[in-house]
Amino acid sequence: MRVVDLIRRKRDSGELTPEEIEQLISAYTRGEVPDYQMSAWLMAVVLRGMSRAEIAALTEAMLRSGRVLDFSYLAGRKVDKHSTGGVGDKASLIIAPIVAAGGLKVPMISGRGLGHTGGTLDKLESIPGFNVNLSLADFRSVLQTCGCALIGQTAEIAPADKKIYALRDVTGTVESLALICASIMSKKLAEGIDALVLDVKVGSGAFMKKEEDAAELADLMVETGKRMGKKVVALLTDMNQPLGRKAGNAMEVAESIEVLSGGGPADLRELCLELAAWMFYLGERVKTLDEGKKLSTDLIASGHAREKFREIVGLQGGDVGVVNDPGRLAHARHSLAVTSASEGYVASIQCEQLGVACVVLGGGREKKEDTIDAAVGLEFHKRIGDPVERGEPLCTLNYNSEFRLVEARRLVETAYRIEPGKPQSVPPLLHRVIGA
Amino acid sequence: MRVVDLIRRKRDSGELTPEEIEQLISAYTRGEVPDYQMSAWLMAVVLRGMSRAEIAALTEAMLRSGRVLDFSYLAGRKVDKHSTGGVGDKASLIIAPIVAAGGLKVPMISGRGLGHTGGTLDKLESIPGFNVNLSLADFRSVLQTCGCALIGQTAEIAPADKKIYALRDVTGTVESLALICASIMSKKLAEGIDALVLDVKVGSGAFMKKEEDAAELADLMVETGKRMGKKVVALLTDMNQPLGRKAGNAMEVAESIEVLSGGGPADLRELCLELAAWMFYLGERVKTLDEGKKLSTDLIASGHAREKFREIVGLQGGDVGVVNDPGRLAHARHSLAVTSASEGYVASIQCEQLGVACVVLGGGREKKEDTIDAAVGLEFHKRIGDPVERGEPLCTLNYNSEFRLVEARRLVETAYRIEPGKPQSVPPLLHRVIGA
Repeated sequence: MRVVDLIRRKRDSGELTPEEIEQLISAYTRGEVPDYQMSAWLMAVVLRGMSRAEIAALTEAMLRSGRVLDFSYLAGRKVDKHSTGGVGDKASLIIAPIVAAGGLKVPMISGRGLGHTGGTLDKLESIPGFNVNLSLADFRSVLQTCGCALIGQTAEIAPADKKIYALRDVTGTVESLALICASIMSKKLAEGIDALVLDVKVGSGAFMKKEEDAAELADLMVETGKRMGKKVVALLTDMNQPLGRKAGNAMEVAESIEVLSGGGPADLRELCLELAAWMFYLGERVKTLDEGKKLSTDLIASGHAREKFREIVGLQGGDVGVVNDPGRLAHARHSLAVTSASEGYVASIQCEQLGVACVVLGGGREKKEDTIDAAVGLEFHKRIGDPVERGEPLCTLNYNSEFRLVEARRLVETAYRIEPGKPQSVPPLLHRVIGA
Repeated sequence: MRVVDLIRRKRDSGELTPEEIEQLISAYTRGEVPDYQMSAWLMAVVLRGMSRAEIAALTEAMLRSGRVLDFSYLAGRKVDKHSTGGVGDKASLIIAPIVAAGGLKVPMISGRGLGHTGGTLDKLESIPGFNVNLSLADFRSVLQTCGCALIGQTAEIAPADKKIYALRDVTGTVESLALICASIMSKKLAEGIDALVLDVKVGSGAFMKKEEDAAELADLMVETGKRMGKKVVALLTDMNQPLGRKAGNAMEVAESIEVLSGGGPADLRELCLELAAWMFYLGERVKTLDEGKKLSTDLIASGHAREKFREIVGLQGGDVGVVNDPGRLAHARHSLAVTSASEGYVASIQCEQLGVACVVLGGGREKKEDTIDAAVGLEFHKRIGDPVERGEPLCTLNYNSEFRLVEARRLVETAYRIEPGKPQSVPPLLHRVIGA
């Protein structure tokens, strides 16, 4: 195999064999193929695409680049959920304890904030002491004890993805459905799960702005998972506005505890019940989705889901006191409300701008080396279709740095479009289900 | 400037500003932009193309990455010629001394063999002692003394091109008219010339197999040169068969001396007179092309051109005895004639295969580290349209290694297509002139 020939073939819209893809990925992971060849190949993939067979081979090669976990010795189906990322999307923090409380096993390996979107790991780390960097042995142990463990990518799991992802991030090769699919699925399938629920976000705050792109990605991931013998379903859900009322790491943990305590914003609660129901259904814990929703509702009402969250926090070294008293989480020193300049209705929201504003405040990373300020974030007062008075707050910025406020404020101010008339329709929370 | 944004913009078919291109190239040359970002950008350029303005900016940026020579203190116009490369193309060795003998200055910076094509430097080095690695000071001195100097790329001239070229070679990003144009023109314009004659090869032995691609490249180069205030013309010339009768480094030097001595094959002689005439014309040494051709013919007939070649060889450390006695050049130990399997006419020649055969024999490099065997090469007995008897020699392979012969022989045997009838047309030597 000459790497330059594989690059040239892809550049000229040709197809690579599974063996060629396997060799390329394993040689790159071992450090035998330099970054500059891989990045040229990745750009050719972005611009020329990959066949379904190539995507499956790439996923398999990335999966096999590291350890594939096996939890078959644990009773109960192993299920997981993955979101493609959005603004205010803290569903994993809520669903994982619900589903574990319901008797399934949730070995969840999550990511950090990416671009304008938040990351489960960053949110969890806003709980004082919470350790997301468990060894595989500790991951197994926590999972065995309480049915759920929430950790970050480890060096053992899909190391090819870790290396390729870092390269894509700095070479403009993130935006490829084929590469996104292989990246997500290789990690998720390495978790040793039986079933996977994908939450594919679509809209102004998602990576996929267009429904057809989101549907194509969902379809690719579902097919890739099914080819590999897993139960997989993808829900296309709305990201034309933030999920829930809060974005920012500590603020989102607090909101998650609200939902686990039986409260919280309706949209967030509804999405979590929907996703948890699918996990129970695919995990064969229930026979119908309705039964799954009822089980989830009951687990919240009974306090079992919240108790499971506290158990996970404790086992992973976090301050369990936070669960009863979210006031122990970090708070920003200042806040500023962005108000509406006119009267009318919220017609649309540039949701990505709100995510960027949160990053700018310090809630995410602009460069890899940046540290995160867990306290900062945004509180959203208006959703699409809501009426607003002139001067009424649209969004409150919780911040620690005046310097960072300037840019964030500008982003928030221009994110909301107010129109005199009520919008004819409001985006539905669930667009469609693929693979059911 | 964030490099990843420039990569993304080009990936999405956007245009970069001259300032952005300048910053990217200078940062890369300084080592501040890593290879893996540059290769992703280059692949995006290959697949998305560049505007004329971008190509001009890239050429300028690469040109300015190093020293731009200035020979304005020398009397006489400075002119050069560049060929995009072919099989048996030794025209530079003949033209440079003709034009210098005619009173113009020829500061020629040439390259090595690339792929299946030969390189001027490799040919010159088959003359014992000839030094192509002159310092800039020695380059100036030889040029001043005899009006011509023939050297290789130096670290001072267009270092960006050197670095980018090495990267393109291993990342499948060679095949881009924009990048080829910028690479050639940045080096040539750094020579401090007033005028440039481009010999753009087209046909089965050229990098550009199709006339429209060759014409587009020619047009790009001419426009880029003119934008930068130079007189530039491009001749599209035929490479559907080897130029002259010989390919191989020492063999080509011998054939060049034949032409400088008033003999040599008609096609090679005709092309050299044509190119030299254009150099004299653009260099304002003559008023018409016909006058330029006559001057070139006279300079050969009078022995002045040959004497100039001897002078250059001597000043650059080479064995001047070679000029009177080409028998002093290296000779291969063995030869084998490939003969025609049938009677008829040469209908076409896979000229690139002949070039590859020459490389396989040791006349070029398959890997960068390979050393060249100056002695080996091919002698061509038949041109397109020539009648052949069954068993009559088509091509003789001069070789030193039986091991290498096997593959080279196979390539030569399958390169000639013999048909019963005389071909209706034979490719013209000069296809067209662009930029005149």
